[in-house]
Amino acid sequence: MSELPLDETTRVRRLPERQRTERAELDAVLDAAMVAHVGVVRDGQPVVIPFASARDGDGLLLHGSTGAGLLRAAAAGEPVCATVTLLDGLVVARSVFDHSMNYRSAVVLGVPEVLEGEAKERALQVITDHLLPGRTSEVRASTRKELAATLVVRLPLDRASVKVRAAPATTAPDDGEDRGTWAGVVPLQTWAGDPQPHHDVPDGVEVPESVRAAVAATRTPRR
Amino acid sequence: MSELPLDETTRVRRLPERQRTERAELDAVLDAAMVAHVGVVRDGQPVVIPFASARDGDGLLLHGSTGAGLLRAAAAGEPVCATVTLLDGLVVARSVFDHSMNYRSAVVLGVPEVLEGEAKERALQVITDHLLPGRTSEVRASTRKELAATLVVRLPLDRASVKVRAAPATTAPDDGEDRGTWAGVVPLQTWAGDPQPHHDVPDGVEVPESVRAAVAATRTPRR
Repeated sequence: MSELPLDETTRVRRLPERQRTERAELDAVLDAAMVAHVGVVRDGQPVVIPFASARDGDGLLLHGSTGAGLLRAAAAGEPVCATVTLLDGLVVARSVFDHSMNYRSAVVLGVPEVLEGEAKERALQVITDHLLPGRTSEVRASTRKELAATLVVRLPLDRASVKVRAAPATTAPDDGEDRGTWAGVVPLQTWAGDPQPHHDVPDGVEVPESVRAAVAATRTPRR
Repeated sequence: MSELPLDETTRVRRLPERQRTERAELDAVLDAAMVAHVGVVRDGQPVVIPFASARDGDGLLLHGSTGAGLLRAAAAGEPVCATVTLLDGLVVARSVFDHSMNYRSAVVLGVPEVLEGEAKERALQVITDHLLPGRTSEVRASTRKELAATLVVRLPLDRASVKVRAAPATTAPDDGEDRGTWAGVVPLQTWAGDPQPHHDVPDGVEVPESVRAAVAATRTPRR
């Protein structure tokens, strides 16, 4: 297993025992996420915007309109931070203080590179297939006009940190704690409902494999 | 209905038709969220970290350890951006380009104030009860030591923007589109599983009202 390189910016200082340092754990968190919250600095003010995201090898892909200010700044060489969080549970304790959340989060720092040409077209397919496995083989490809209207960037994964809480509630029996007070975990997950066809889809057209796979993925217990 | 004041930093430039400008819509998005992604600037580098969040009147409450660097920076007067995103659906289109997501997001910019004393203790109760309605009446209060170890800040809501996509797939029948290709929406929601009691909870202790309310909230269709 390869290890993530740690430096002053990626070493977790608060609750360091929650840091995971294996590269495979970073990949697992990014691969389970649909959205990254991406921060840039504008005139000294941080701005954080959600983007659909997908990992591709050693990079995190983000895309949007060529008119998207945050993405344009990132494409112009501004440093960004892309953070992904999977909320896995509410941790219910016996004091206000010990309430917490179970989660997996990844923070990726860096300067993204702009993708062009074939790399750009392929990246858009990777993002689409990440959310809907195999969808790109079910639909028409992007036109030149569509590609020209889209900005795609790739953030390298060489400065990243992963933090995970996956534990029961903290209970402290010495602390005047009442064992008769319920404590535990409420598991949380992102759940897909039944696909809703567009009104112009003719009767008899079945829900495609990509959509069924995306729905099924949310209904499978995680471990 | 009161309107959110808009300025150059809170006016949505990309897809402005998705901007919602009523204050009640900001409140609704913040009240439906469990986590905010909070950005600060550190040595020119944006850093984005997830925090449990809860709205209280005209402020968004965030809390963490007094050892949490991001929160300390915020408490020291650094500008922050707190962004909340509710992912409502995968929008499945007939071209790679038209795939999208349905979502509600809120971006709050500002400098938080640090809460102390009664305001701090009350804020921690508000955050706890936001996630688990009524939980603070089921557990012991925070001790002075616990309060001293916790930093609580309140970000005013006077510089905020809300963006929503809640629409069917974009279909373009003139564009060589094949109506036989399925298009539609896959609804997404955060779903709570059955509460898992801590191993030291004695038999016969029932799941409390706060936990049942939190679970039920995730199982109620949104509209």
